[in-house]
Amino acid sequence: MSIEAVEFFYLSMPRVEDIGDGSQDALVVRVSADGVEGWGECEASPLVSIAAFVTPMSHGACKPVRDVVLGKPIDSAADIAAIQAAVEMECMDLLQAAHTFSGIEMALWDLLGRKRNAPVYELLGYTRAFPKLPYASQLFGDTPQETLAGCRRARDSGYRAVKCGWGPFGRGTLEQDRDHLQAAREGIGADGTLLVDAGQIFREDVDAAARRIRYLEEVGTVWFEEPFLGGAYGAYAALAAKSGKVRLAGGEASHNFHMAQQLIDYGKVGFIQIDCGRIGGIGPAKRAADYAAAHGVTYVNHTFTSHLALCASLQPFAGLESHRICEYPFAPKSVAWEMSETHLSPDGNGMVNLPQAPGLGITMSASGMRKYMVPVEIAAHGKVLYRSPTL
Amino acid sequence: MSIEAVEFFYLSMPRVEDIGDGSQDALVVRVSADGVEGWGECEASPLVSIAAFVTPMSHGACKPVRDVVLGKPIDSAADIAAIQAAVEMECMDLLQAAHTFSGIEMALWDLLGRKRNAPVYELLGYTRAFPKLPYASQLFGDTPQETLAGCRRARDSGYRAVKCGWGPFGRGTLEQDRDHLQAAREGIGADGTLLVDAGQIFREDVDAAARRIRYLEEVGTVWFEEPFLGGAYGAYAALAAKSGKVRLAGGEASHNFHMAQQLIDYGKVGFIQIDCGRIGGIGPAKRAADYAAAHGVTYVNHTFTSHLALCASLQPFAGLESHRICEYPFAPKSVAWEMSETHLSPDGNGMVNLPQAPGLGITMSASGMRKYMVPVEIAAHGKVLYRSPTL
Repeated sequence: MSIEAVEFFYLSMPRVEDIGDGSQDALVVRVSADGVEGWGECEASPLVSIAAFVTPMSHGACKPVRDVVLGKPIDSAADIAAIQAAVEMECMDLLQAAHTFSGIEMALWDLLGRKRNAPVYELLGYTRAFPKLPYASQLFGDTPQETLAGCRRARDSGYRAVKCGWGPFGRGTLEQDRDHLQAAREGIGADGTLLVDAGQIFREDVDAAARRIRYLEEVGTVWFEEPFLGGAYGAYAALAAKSGKVRLAGGEASHNFHMAQQLIDYGKVGFIQIDCGRIGGIGPAKRAADYAAAHGVTYVNHTFTSHLALCASLQPFAGLESHRICEYPFAPKSVAWEMSETHLSPDGNGMVNLPQAPGLGITMSASGMRKYMVPVEIAAHGKVLYRSPTL
Repeated sequence: MSIEAVEFFYLSMPRVEDIGDGSQDALVVRVSADGVEGWGECEASPLVSIAAFVTPMSHGACKPVRDVVLGKPIDSAADIAAIQAAVEMECMDLLQAAHTFSGIEMALWDLLGRKRNAPVYELLGYTRAFPKLPYASQLFGDTPQETLAGCRRARDSGYRAVKCGWGPFGRGTLEQDRDHLQAAREGIGADGTLLVDAGQIFREDVDAAARRIRYLEEVGTVWFEEPFLGGAYGAYAALAAKSGKVRLAGGEASHNFHMAQQLIDYGKVGFIQIDCGRIGGIGPAKRAADYAAAHGVTYVNHTFTSHLALCASLQPFAGLESHRICEYPFAPKSVAWEMSETHLSPDGNGMVNLPQAPGLGITMSASGMRKYMVPVEIAAHGKVLYRSPTL
């Protein structure tokens, strides 16, 4: 079969707030081939990723993603890899192409799994999907009291792992950060897994980040995420040498396999966090998981949107039993929840399990999506290049 | 003064061909503040870079570039750096933002130079701009005879340095590549500077690239450019260890300073090639030039479009006398030529000199641009987010 159609559904909350909550909009992709459908999701900035699909060609190595994808054969995992490699070469100078293709690639795996009646993790070579321990991802509160309350709420909801990030962290004094960290620990309890996300706040300032290590260690922080700009591997490595029991985490911005590899090789992270909606899809993410496992680094998904994205992002490390923690959209906005009928709720042990269903195993909700659709139109030279499909 | 307006002019040849010629379209940017104008150019895929300027916010770290730039103060080089840093943080998850901002950043330098009545290279701290030896950049011919003819033509036009790239190179047999290389050397003459660009054809295959080294050495190739995927630093380093007198070159895809730094540190290139229309503009490029100079690596501009882009791309290493080679759009399409009145033609010694004029020193041509304008309209929820301005 060959790829007959790729359609984008841009969904958004009516009002997007200026906060670090990635679940406020979504770009859902539907791919069709020979009567089978597959679904995926691009992360982030839906309008720009749509534009990368339809933009006029600039030159031979700067084509719209559409030109490289439509009509291609899709009968095997090797076909998906071939399309991915073609996008890398033919969209070489189109920066956004990696994000656009990521959602398409997910949808291709979903489609192939449905066609073959097999879950995606089996197509990736895993014989089973191990349960993952979800962490509730939330922002630091404006005050330590708010941080405490947020962490208590997560614990009371059954989460044994919590990540606090962004907000005031790194923006005030060292003592304020210490107070937030102690509040977080108090909120999740002595036996909870605590993760901290600095949101790149220290840019390249190793000393400023290093001054927080003592307090991170005091409260038993498992990982310290994105202290620096994504590409500042030198800063990462310098901090890793000083971070004691606290291991560094990063990699969510990787838009190809090599960026993940580099953060492992040169940045010396202990956890590599991959967003399947950015790295080029499930295939490059699986390669990153294999590389991490071979180099003593733990793979973790980065997912701050829907359960479709969550399900796709769990596939690459589904079969790696010891890579146990997963990011879980703890309190997503309604758009991210209502767009699918299937959700991956924690089981009685508080663990997340992948669906034992073909493809990604997610049933989308047409009515849920319709509520949040943002119709888009892009025209050049008076000719419509893109108009949102109806659903 | 503060940034009052940012306007985009999408220019294109009526027909864009599926060849490796980057001069077939252009995205020109005009920034206005306090009655002064500055001009810059984004590289590449104009429609997508425009979309990144106007796209609705996805979340706090995924804003449209517009929201971070408009209204900001612009009175000093430090102001430009502050805006660049803000774009990095507030457009963190918007991949295309780096390309969009690159053209804006160039325009800000141009504007500041015009306001201060100083060339941009002086604002960067250089006391003078040294002449650069331009190389004529062209595609390998379909046959060695065509490669020979193309190189002869370049030599006969006065070029003492020629780069051949893409086309059949690396796609056929080793002997075919050898024949093309020998033809290129014959065409440019014994004393010409020969550069070779593989256009990432070997992806990550070090052995395939290494088999060409002998023939590259035989014809006295100065650099071997982009043998691999941009992020395959391990492959770069492995080949660098085997490449003898031929030094590796790469870096054109760098969309921030760190990617350039990494290719130097980990990829072991001898030449770092920076496109100011991608790396975030002149400021990050200057930082890359400083880093290269401090690490024994030669900085070179990457420019395959207009003389506006060329002029911007020469500023970051204008004052580095020993970094002597520059990429020069040898035979650009008419759109890239006609959009400006000023051109940087080689002098009597065949060298390229920067204008001794305020800012970038380029006078744009309204009539030249009008001939190639692609009107664009982007709408969401029935509301027009962007409509091309007239000129």
